[in-house]
Amino acid sequence: MQVIDGKKVAEEVLQEVAQEINALKSQGITPGLAVVLVGEDPASQVYVNSKARKCAELGMHSEKIVLSADTSQEELLKVIEQLNNNPAIHGILVQSPPPKHIDEAAVVLTIDPAKDVDGFHPENVAKLVLEDETGFVPCTPLGCMRLLKSAGIDTCGANAVVIGRSMIVGKPMAHLLMAKDANATVTVAHSRTKNLADLCKGADIIVAAIGRPNFVTADFVKDGAVVVDVGINRVEDATAPRGYRIVGDVDYANVAPKCKAITPVPGGVGPMTIALLMANTVKACKQQNNIR
Amino acid sequence: MQVIDGKKVAEEVLQEVAQEINALKSQGITPGLAVVLVGEDPASQVYVNSKARKCAELGMHSEKIVLSADTSQEELLKVIEQLNNNPAIHGILVQSPPPKHIDEAAVVLTIDPAKDVDGFHPENVAKLVLEDETGFVPCTPLGCMRLLKSAGIDTCGANAVVIGRSMIVGKPMAHLLMAKDANATVTVAHSRTKNLADLCKGADIIVAAIGRPNFVTADFVKDGAVVVDVGINRVEDATAPRGYRIVGDVDYANVAPKCKAITPVPGGVGPMTIALLMANTVKACKQQNNIR
Repeated sequence: MQVIDGKKVAEEVLQEVAQEINALKSQGITPGLAVVLVGEDPASQVYVNSKARKCAELGMHSEKIVLSADTSQEELLKVIEQLNNNPAIHGILVQSPPPKHIDEAAVVLTIDPAKDVDGFHPENVAKLVLEDETGFVPCTPLGCMRLLKSAGIDTCGANAVVIGRSMIVGKPMAHLLMAKDANATVTVAHSRTKNLADLCKGADIIVAAIGRPNFVTADFVKDGAVVVDVGINRVEDATAPRGYRIVGDVDYANVAPKCKAITPVPGGVGPMTIALLMANTVKACKQQNNIR
Repeated sequence: MQVIDGKKVAEEVLQEVAQEINALKSQGITPGLAVVLVGEDPASQVYVNSKARKCAELGMHSEKIVLSADTSQEELLKVIEQLNNNPAIHGILVQSPPPKHIDEAAVVLTIDPAKDVDGFHPENVAKLVLEDETGFVPCTPLGCMRLLKSAGIDTCGANAVVIGRSMIVGKPMAHLLMAKDANATVTVAHSRTKNLADLCKGADIIVAAIGRPNFVTADFVKDGAVVVDVGINRVEDATAPRGYRIVGDVDYANVAPKCKAITPVPGGVGPMTIALLMANTVKACKQQNNIR
């Protein structure tokens, strides 16, 4: 059984990104990422700060724009438009979730698709479906694909079950797996799926993106399956320093022994997401500068 | 075993469309469809003429624009732009396949998404994935969904296997089936799928869109399954008036007896496609006139 080390693979991605950044800088170009946060949500602040820190580590330009929770939709869209027109910024990310008075779909539509490093703009959604590689793919499923590749998993002809049909993970993951360069046979399962355990039992690859701790139990998994756990769930744990610990959607202790390969939580998919965000920003920078 | 009568269901759709057209006309609005054909392909001419005839039957305005096979990409795009700007035209369709010197993707991108009644423009592709009902969905999968509905098939929680991953049928069909208003568990199978027969054997609903005569045989189908046959294949038949006959992707004679419901070929999905094209054109007309 192979534990897929997301920290290590993320480091590899970041090293590649660092090389690309150095090459760009030698041409006088510095990739830039803008992260916009509306409101004071503590978890969002942690995410935003870690993105800015990663940019700094890589020598990338970054701008963190923190707007108060009462910022109007109109003001937010104006900020995004300024970033769209700012040549120092190649990637724009609006930290989710925004306050309730903000229409997230309108926010996504306002971001220049060429700078949409989250891959949420409809133009990028369509490019994924159309297998047009100039588009941006959401970072988490992109990270999952990279983990599979780094673990030497052959997806061609594999039966893959993706649990979850969100626009952030499930649907893009399904498209990446069914695309001609991956060629998996993909099933998208969700809350209305019947006999999910039986369905998963036939899978060579299971991608769990449900958001429920320990949802995928050993009876879901056939011997020799590959399991990618996208879940990041807090469960109470009085013995943990903060009173909780982070677990995935997979009952790791019981599932892992059956697997050919599995991603742990933490240390699996998690570190990949930010690494692929950096990679997407460099890709955006290169495209905007007509490089390669 | 229920044979789903596509001719009858298509008539029902066309009656609804006719009612909507009458309501629009009473407000002084006549829906208009433009069909553009490049070259002299006889099969394409038949399709284009049948679309124009259907428009006439329904009292819709139609324009048939036939350009010679040597028409340049630039000239074709200019014609499309004129149609985009023509207020009498609400739907635009460029008959496929165009001559080889034409870049079909560029053609699709030039069509105003609001007039893209084929549902091929990336903006409409994204709307389908995002479950935004203002978009246009390709007519054939839309017709398949209507056939399932008319036959009283409950898709919620059903295991559906879509064979084929094209942008015209397979992928949009998968999205329609997995959307929250259908809630099927969808598997997309294709040329690289292993053990396709076993996979299909677990399916409550099989949608066959491969383009190979008699590909889906009885051993693919469990008792009580629902089979939708999208295939339109010519096979030689010396006894037929034209020397060939049209068959689907399903070995109908042996599969049908096992089914709860099945669409025949001809007379199944075929008649639905043109009916849904008319429905999409009326939808486009209403949206362009801000009606409902």
